[in-house]
Order: sequence, then structure tokens, then C-alpha cells
Amino acid sequence: MGDFMRFFSDNAASAHPAVLDAIVAANAVDTAYDGDAISKRLDGAFSDLFGRPVESLWIATGTAANSLALAALCPPYGGVLCHHDAHIQNDEAGAPEFYTHGAKLLLAQGDGAKLTVDSVTATADAIARDVHRVQPHALSLTNATEYGRVYAPDEVAALADWAKGRGFGVHMDGARFANAIAHLGCTPAELTWQAGVDVLSFGFVKNGGMSAEALIFFHEGLAEATRIRRKRAGHLLSKGRFAAAQILALIEEDRWIANGRAANDGARRLAEAATGRLIHAVEANELFLRMTPDEAATLRAQGFDFYDWAEGEIRLVVSWDQPEAEIAALASALAAL
Amino acid sequence: MGDFMRFFSDNAASAHPAVLDAIVAANAVDTAYDGDAISKRLDGAFSDLFGRPVESLWIATGTAANSLALAALCPPYGGVLCHHDAHIQNDEAGAPEFYTHGAKLLLAQGDGAKLTVDSVTATADAIARDVHRVQPHALSLTNATEYGRVYAPDEVAALADWAKGRGFGVHMDGARFANAIAHLGCTPAELTWQAGVDVLSFGFVKNGGMSAEALIFFHEGLAEATRIRRKRAGHLLSKGRFAAAQILALIEEDRWIANGRAANDGARRLAEAATGRLIHAVEANELFLRMTPDEAATLRAQGFDFYDWAEGEIRLVVSWDQPEAEIAALASALAAL
Amino acid sequence: MGDFMRFFSDNAASAHPAVLDAIVAANAVDTAYDGDAISKRLDGAFSDLFGRPVESLWIATGTAANSLALAALCPPYGGVLCHHDAHIQNDEAGAPEFYTHGAKLLLAQGDGAKLTVDSVTATADAIARDVHRVQPHALSLTNATEYGRVYAPDEVAALADWAKGRGFGVHMDGARFANAIAHLGCTPAELTWQAGVDVLSFGFVKNGGMSAEALIFFHEGLAEATRIRRKRAGHLLSKGRFAAAQILALIEEDRWIANGRAANDGARRLAEAATGRLIHAVEANELFLRMTPDEAATLRAQGFDFYDWAEGEIRLVVSWDQPEAEIAALASALAAL
Amino acid sequence: MGDFMRFFSDNAASAHPAVLDAIVAANAVDTAYDGDAISKRLDGAFSDLFGRPVESLWIATGTAANSLALAALCPPYGGVLCHHDAHIQNDEAGAPEFYTHGAKLLLAQGDGAKLTVDSVTATADAIARDVHRVQPHALSLTNATEYGRVYAPDEVAALADWAKGRGFGVHMDGARFANAIAHLGCTPAELTWQAGVDVLSFGFVKNGGMSAEALIFFHEGLAEATRIRRKRAGHLLSKGRFAAAQILALIEEDRWIANGRAANDGARRLAEAATGRLIHAVEANELFLRMTPDEAATLRAQGFDFYDWAEGEIRLVVSWDQPEAEIAALASALAAL
Repeated sequence: MGDFMRFFSDNAASAHPAVLDAIVAANAVDTAYDGDAISKRLDGAFSDLFGRPVESLWIATGTAANSLALAALCPPYGGVLCHHDAHIQNDEAGAPEFYTHGAKLLLAQGDGAKLTVDSVTATADAIARDVHRVQPHALSLTNATEYGRVYAPDEVAALADWAKGRGFGVHMDGARFANAIAHLGCTPAELTWQAGVDVLSFGFVKNGGMSAEALIFFHEGLAEATRIRRKRAGHLLSKGRFAAAQILALIEEDRWIANGRAANDGARRLAEAATGRLIHAVEANELFLRMTPDEAATLRAQGFDFYDWAEGEIRLVVSWDQPEAEIAALASALAAL
Repeated sequence: MGDFMRFFSDNAASAHPAVLDAIVAANAVDTAYDGDAISKRLDGAFSDLFGRPVESLWIATGTAANSLALAALCPPYGGVLCHHDAHIQNDEAGAPEFYTHGAKLLLAQGDGAKLTVDSVTATADAIARDVHRVQPHALSLTNATEYGRVYAPDEVAALADWAKGRGFGVHMDGARFANAIAHLGCTPAELTWQAGVDVLSFGFVKNGGMSAEALIFFHEGLAEATRIRRKRAGHLLSKGRFAAAQILALIEEDRWIANGRAANDGARRLAEAATGRLIHAVEANELFLRMTPDEAATLRAQGFDFYDWAEGEIRLVVSWDQPEAEIAALASALAAL
Repeated sequence: MGDFMRFFSDNAASAHPAVLDAIVAANAVDTAYDGDAISKRLDGAFSDLFGRPVESLWIATGTAANSLALAALCPPYGGVLCHHDAHIQNDEAGAPEFYTHGAKLLLAQGDGAKLTVDSVTATADAIARDVHRVQPHALSLTNATEYGRVYAPDEVAALADWAKGRGFGVHMDGARFANAIAHLGCTPAELTWQAGVDVLSFGFVKNGGMSAEALIFFHEGLAEATRIRRKRAGHLLSKGRFAAAQILALIEEDRWIANGRAANDGARRLAEAATGRLIHAVEANELFLRMTPDEAATLRAQGFDFYDWAEGEIRLVVSWDQPEAEIAALASALAAL
Repeated sequence: MGDFMRFFSDNAASAHPAVLDAIVAANAVDTAYDGDAISKRLDGAFSDLFGRPVESLWIATGTAANSLALAALCPPYGGVLCHHDAHIQNDEAGAPEFYTHGAKLLLAQGDGAKLTVDSVTATADAIARDVHRVQPHALSLTNATEYGRVYAPDEVAALADWAKGRGFGVHMDGARFANAIAHLGCTPAELTWQAGVDVLSFGFVKNGGMSAEALIFFHEGLAEATRIRRKRAGHLLSKGRFAAAQILALIEEDRWIANGRAANDGARRLAEAATGRLIHAVEANELFLRMTPDEAATLRAQGFDFYDWAEGEIRLVVSWDQPEAEIAALASALAAL
């Protein structure tokens, strides 16, 4: 524990030692791009994990993964239904618009950044079905959500059924997919294709990776064009084996789920110390707390770094590698406020 | 030396040990994106290298670096002058068109994939200056070229002067910039900003890097928008310190230039063994040889892997880490044909 | 008066006889595109109308005019502040996103679809100034608004001052500019460049034109690139003289303002007959009325055609050429409900 | 005959009197956009003309029509095979790239701007089938070509068969379709869908129209998305009835083919007067003649206006409404050179 304790984001956490080992081990020369032996193992590893044949692509960032998924599901003249507070809407600098060539994000509401069938119906039904309005073509869910809430398989299924009934594709932004699975205790299959998800952005960077996420396609025919779009976006690494190796290292020995669990556990401990302040139920590794500026200053004075979310609100994020002592210290500090 | 010797491409070569060490060393948690201490050292390191203040951005691939550079120099409705055989025209899956939002590549000729003032003048002057024709806004040179030829500083200056005279920006695709500098023995400054280059894609991946190139801006005001475009393209890595660390490891102790020299030296030795077959002068790390299918088969039977470039032509590429024994073996095999 | 009376939209009204006459008169062969003698008169005519030198472009539709204006003011990676109910947001099928190459519309609130300095400040200030959020680059006002409300010169000036203070360009969607001017009694200059507008979409189609709107540039340097974008969008008509002739016919003898006044007058008469039902003040040629489905059915049974705006609300639009008898009949019918 | 005789282009010719009459007759108020009674007659009229059910869209310019057709046939990451001298490549300001979101034009050669199976095969086969190269998705033919040459039905069929064998869609740019049909004496069906064309840009503006071309879809499912793209491009006119009326006026009484014939006849008469100078066979309404600058000056001194095509070459275009006396005068002048 240093004198600076980072609860700002899980984005900058360390890479898991096994990831670094895998990178070093991948250094032997092999074929370029994604023709190497390590990249070729990915589809098998993910097919095992998801219990059915899937196609997968490594990709350096979650922003690119999400945007490629949306481009696969939505034409340039279409729209993507998502939550008003979704990452694709607020935190990706217009990447979805760039990759889809100008598709429009169509916003719906819902507590804890969770969409409901009612909320997406309200948004979709307000759009007249004519040539003047951008029509929805896809639905994008974030699981866990921006507020650390988790959709259970039946919630995903209800939304996906609704979407399929209207002919929309379904994307899941799983930047914190491991945290969602760790919370639910269900299988990856149950939360994705069995519930109707077509494409998953499977996050590894927040989960112990260095620079690799995965796109998982449960719907045939989407991967091929996406492989081309990945190259066209300059995301086909020459030495792709280093990306694939990271992902495999986290899938092996279930490190990804262990890492998700570790982060969730830390968040739960903090939540227990701050129950009266919780704005959203803590289901993953994020906490949103009511807090006065003075209280926030008190915490900062003790070396805790975090984000001022809104007036009177802060966000705390626990990373997979957060030292035990830092969590204990913050729990105490919260309790003492 | 194994029984399979790779002269196919320098794209899949190993990462330099110092690069791997730097990655491991960068694992300590720091701020996300490019706010970390390592990323912040890049501008200084490049300013030293180029002998003047520059702005720089790490970026995972050469394709993305080139495309971002072109987007900085050319509006969606404009055109980019480049060689008919340029990488941006033939090998980037339309990434320049994607990033520029549909700008047009305007093709010029020239031996060895080298543009000349005459050739670009011919292309530019054939374009009527009216609203019906896409007008050039930028010139893109590749140094070393697709055929392993090198522009000297005065050749760059002649082209850049011409471009500036018409109000065009100047981009240098330096995927093999190290090889060009190693050949010329000039300074990076002489080959770039002193000769009129506005933006350089400085290649590190073929040069011992793992997954990091650099965009160097010699023209004020271009970096800021590019920083936004990089995020919008999903190329802003959460853990950017791992990209910056790679680049610094190659700049330090002049590893980049040593690696470029090593590859060039290998190519020269092969060239000496095949002088009668050379299609282009060998100035960098690539050889293009006249060769019958039977001869090519003979080489392949000896374990050499390479690319059939065209009918009766092969391409050999020497990597920075090519084992001495492989070069000697191939030189002998070529001489023995 | 037929048995079907159209209060549905001013979009499908007739062309003014002077417009048809001008089209027929323009048939003599002249130079193509916009090099003809009639097109060349436009800048002068608009410069007279606006009391200062302006550049102008004819363009077939308001959607294209608005989108070209936004593309002139906002880069692909930027955002445009506009009202949640703006035409560019809801009724142009994503044309702004198409023309700007994916810029994002950033929505603000305000009664009667009117923005206020407070509302745009709220939207803009909620956007963190970092690379992850799409930053606003332009402000777009609609005058008269979607709800038939009118910004006065001082209201425009307050918003434009605010925008200029942040470095944003200012666009006015003037699809019903004539109605706004007719209501205000001010000069076109007062409502546009004197108040800080950079580009105006000056609507003529709803105002007696057939297929021609005008883009008016009060800010130097924007027209040139827009001229190129117009061609690139396939909006440079071969026989542009027919478009220019329409516009000139409506500028001449102040027909445009007379037509705007006629439509406004009709709307005011209807408003007087339905004062208790008004949802928005009637300042232009549109009325939004509270009305039960039964009442609406009663009106339709009498031959009046109009739009069901929302539950319990209807919209009535009076066109420039609406027959006196139709207005009188509808006023009576409204009063009789 | 005035003292200025225009052989510069057929772009600026007059509108046919029947077109003007139809415009005036269309002025009665009807539904907006393309829901009016006149627009609704188009599909039937074209289905009759082509001898099978077709879907059609009016569109103001040939550039927009071509670009919409290409966007219907080619994804953003794909390529369109066309002639090096095609209008879409050289004269549309990058509109195809704009509408397709950056698809690449893949150029092939051929005399008289006519593609052949050999030439397109050469271009297509030079493109490696990997993710690094832009892959062709469509073939675009211009009939009559930029040089006034005409593809016969069997030539179109050979190219379309080749394209279909590779899974490419087929577009015909028929800006001078009437001239091609007039030359061949075949049916519109024979030159289009019976030969394998999927989408036709049917030109009316050069043929007596004012501001309306037609897109004809012979392939199911393409029209619907194009209708949306047309709106998104700002090409859905509010008062579409005026566009539809133009087209119907030219289809009725076979005016379109009569106009094509008239222009072709004029060109043939000029060709007979200049047989020794012809660079391309004269099959439509354009002539390309070898001519010294002095000779060109001599013609201009007599009041003939035309285009200097290249050094020592001029282009003459005969319009549908070219006065008999002008043709006779130019024929004499050419013979007298």
C-alpha cells in the first residue's frame, strides 16, 4: 500500500503476471497478423468457454470492439438503441458513429443504466416508421452497466426477445463481463447466446489484460465482414500473437473469472462500509456514493483517489489487483466519515 | 537456425528483448490512457531525436498511423497524391478512405515506387481545377518505399517544396524509416522536417517493437485533432504506458537505428549473392529478384520462406533479428542457383 | 374550396405562379451547373436583401441545406448543439450525421423547441472537456421552431454570443425564415448576421418555391468548401438556372415575405378560434392544439386533413396559398367544437 | 441560330416543352415527398417500359443516382470496378466515395472507355484475396460511355455474367441511356435486366428533363434501403410530384427515345463531315476529334463552343434540342477545315 490508493478506474490496473509471461512466451517469430498459432487457438478456447462453436476476433480496445460490433449489426442509415448513460453514447468520442458511418444512437432510460422492455419500447415506439426518422436496427446492452448493475440472464432474454421480434440485432458491451458473471454465478452461455445475444464485446483489459479485448460472434456471417472492418480500422496488429496470448492467459485457469470475483469482492466490502450512501446496488466492482465535498476531501487527504461523478456523488472502482490493504483502509475510512 | 527460415516479411519478427523488458517494467499501475508518466516522456524523447520540439502520439499499427496522418492533412472531399504501388493504396484495406471519410488517393508513377516531381506534376496537372474533380490536398511518400528504395533528403525536399507550392501537406509513411535512415546515414531531422515533411508515421513494429508506432507532428495544430481522432477510432489504449514503453525502449541506446542497420546489412549480403537478379537497387531490407518458379521451388525446398511478388519475381525481406546463419544460408543458396 | 382541405403541412403547397413563370423563362440554354447568368445573380440579390456582401448557394432541399451548413461548421469528430425536438434531430433521417461524417447532435431543452442560454449551457457543461466526450463545435437554431415559435433578434444574439464565446459556429435553420421575419417585422439582417448567425438555411420550398432553398454564408471561407460538398453530394444540378430562377422569383417583389405573412395570418385566425386549446403561442404558421380523438374525428369528417402530433394533440399548418375559404371554414369548425 | 452555338455539353440543354407543361400541370397541391399521385405512377410507367415489374426512384442528378446505386451494391469496405475514364471516377467529385462511405473505385482499361471481360479480369485478378486489399463487390458500366461508344446487349451480358460469377452486383450508368438505345435499336429490357443489370441510372436531364433522373431497380430488396439513403442525402424533395412529372413527360409518347435519336443523328452528321479526324467511333451524341489549336480557333471564331479534351483533341456534344441550322453550320465548318 502506497500513500496513493487508486480507486479511480479499473482501466489502468496492472496486467496479470500470467499475461506478461504469455507475452514474453509469444515472442518467437510466427506468421504475421492473425495467422499465427496462438491467434488460431482463440476460436477453440472461446467455443469451449461458451459451449458452442463461436468465431472470435482480438481487438486492442473496448471502444473499437463495441464499434465494430455495432457496425456489424447496424447500417449507416440505421440506429442503435442504448441507454442514455451507455459508454457508447458518452465515453467513446463518437467511435460508434465513426465505425457505423453515422448511425444514430437512440436513447432509452432505466435505473442504474439498465434498460427494460418498457423503456426500449417507449423509445422505439416514439419513432414514426417512415423515411424521415432513423429506424432502430440494433440493441446494445452493457453488462455490468455503467453504474455497476448487472442484467441477469432472464433480463437479457426479455430484451433480446423484444429486439428479435422487431428484427434488431443484439450487442452486449461486456467491458465488465467478468464482473457480471462473477456476480451472477451463471455460465457465459446463459448470459449471452442462450439469452439471444448476437455479438459480445468481451472485456479483458480491465480484467488483467494489457491491450486485448475479444469480439465474440454468436450469429453466423458477422465475423467475416468484421475481420475486414478491423483491418480497415487499422486494428489488425502485425504481431497479433501478442494480443491472442493475453486473452488465452486470462481464459486459462479461469483467471478472468477469478479476477472479476476479486474486484467484486472488494467492492462489496466497501459497500458494506457505506450502506447508507449507496446510490445504486453494488453488483459488480463499482460504487456510486452520496458524499459531500468535505467528505470527499477527507478521503482524498488520506490518499484515496477517485472520481467526482456528479454534484454530491462520487464513484469508486475496485480493480482486480487492488491490494487487500487498500480496500481495508478505504472501508475504514468510509465507515469513519 | 531452424528448418524454416522466414524471409517473408519483417512484420512478424520478434520484439526486441529491451522492448519486452520495458513492457514488464511498465506494469506498475499508473494513470490510464496517455496520461501516464511513460507516455508523457515521448514528446521529449522525439524532440531530442528530431532536434526540435515535436508532438507525438503512439498508435498500435502503421495502417492507423498513416490513416490518421492523412485525415489530419486532407478533408473528406479532397485527394492524397501517392505512388500507384503505395501501401496506403494497396495494402491497408481502404483505411485511408475510412479515416479521411472518403478522400481519394490520386496515383502517380515512378521507378521503385519512388515519386518524382515530374510524376506528381503529371498526376496533379491532369486534374482540372473545378468542382467536379477531387482536388489534391496532400502528398504521401513512403520511405523506404514498397520496393526497398530510399528517398534522400534532397529528393524529399524537392517533392515537399513542390507540394508546399501548391498548398498540399506532406506525409511520410516511415514504416521502414529506420531502414531509410540507416541507409542514408543522415539525421532524422534532415529526412523529415528540414526537408518539409509535416507528419511522419515512424515505424517501430517492423523494427523490434511489439505493437506501437509513432505519429510525429512537425506542423503545429495537427496533433490536437489527431488525438481526438485516435480515440474516436478506438486506438486510445487504456493502458497506454505499455505502448509508450516499447517506443522508448527502441529510441534509447539507438536500438531503432541499430535494428534498421542489421536488417539492411542482411539484405545487402543477399543482394551481393544475387546481383544479376535484382529488379530494384537494394537500399533497405527488401530484395525483389527475378526468379523462375523452378528456382523458387528449389529455395523453398531448402527451408526458405518468401513471397511470390509477380510472375517470375520474388520478394525477400530481412528482419532486424534475422539470424546470421539464415542470411548466410540464403546467400549461398542464391549464389548456387 | 374542395371537399378535402389540407392543413397537414406546408411542404406540399403549390409553387407560386411567379416561380413557374420564372422556370419557363429560364429554359433558354445557358451554361451548365451554376455558371449561368441566373445563378450568378443570386449573390447580388441576397447581398441586397441582407444589407452586406454574402455568398449563397442554391440547394434542392432543406435537409441538404441544413446538413451542408453543419458540415461547414463541425468536424466529423465534433458535435452540434440543437434542440431535442429539432428537425435536424428528428426529421432528416440522419442526414446531418451523413454530411458531417458522424458528428453527434447534442440535445438541449426549451419550451416551444426554443433553446435558451441556460439550456445550452446545461447541455454543454455536462460534457467533460476530454477526449472521450464529443465536444460541441456548433449551435443550430430553428427559426421559426418546430412548434411555430419565433426567436427575436435579441434572443438569437444572446445564444450566438454564448456560442461565439466558446468558439462554436452558429447555424440557423430557416425552413420557415419568412414566417419568422413576417412575425417579427425586423430585417433579415437583424435576425441573422447582425445577431451572430454564420450560416442560414433560407427556406423557399414551403414559401412558394418548387425545389430550391438557399444557403447564405455570413462568415467568409465557408462557402467554398460547401460548394465542393454540394457537388460531392450530388446536389449540383446540371441546369442550375432553374433553381436560381425560383429563388429570384420569390425575392423579387418581396413575394417571400408576403407569402410568409399570408400563412401567418391564416394561422392567427385559426388561433383566435381555438384560444383555449393552444399548446404553444402561435407566432408563425403552425398551431398545436389540445384535442380529443372525437373532436379530431369531427374535424376530419368535415374534410380537414391534419397531423395527430401526440396523444390528445393535433398540429395544423397553414400554407402560403391556403384558400381564404378553407381558413374560414376551419376557424368556424374549431369554434364550433 | 444565334452567333453562339453550343456544342460544349448536353448538360445545359433546354427542357422539353412537354416537361415544362407537365411541371405547370403538377402544381395542384398533393401529398408531400413521393406519396403524390404522379410519383406513384412511376413504377408502373417504368414496369411497362422495361417489360417487367421494377421499382424506381426519382432523383435530381445523375451523380446522386449513380452514387446511390453504388451504395446499394457495395459495402463501405468494398470496391467498385469501373473504367479508368468513368464519370464516377473523374467527374463526380468523390460522390461515390461519399455515398458508399469510402468504397474504392478499382480501375480497368478498355478502348473508348468500354470495359471488356479481359480488362476487368485483369484488374480483379491483380487483387489478392486477402483482408489487406479492397475486394470488388460491384461492376459499373457507362452506356453510352464517356467517349460516346455503346455497349450492345451481348457485351453487357458478357460483363454481367462475369460479374455475377464472382458475386458482384452490376450497375449501369445510363446518363445517356437514351442515346445508347437509339443507337442499338434494342429494347430497354434487352440492354438492362435481360443482360444482367441490377440497377440502372436512367438519365433524363441530358435528354430533355429539367432536374430529374431515375434509378431503376431490377433486383429485389435494393430499392427500400435506397429510398432511405435518398432521404438521408437530402434528395427527397418535398414536392416530388414536380420531379416525377418531368420523367413521365419524357416517357410518354417515347419522347426520351426521340430526343436520343435526334442528338445521335446530329452527331452522325458531324461525324460524316469529319471522318478523318475521329478518335472514337461515333455511336451516340459525342464526337472526339483530332484537331490542331489553329483549327479549333477557326471553329470558335465562327461561333462554335466546345471543349478542348486533350492536346490536339476536341469534344463535340450534340444536344437533343440542337437546332438543325447549327448542326449544318458546324458540319460545313468541319468539312471546310
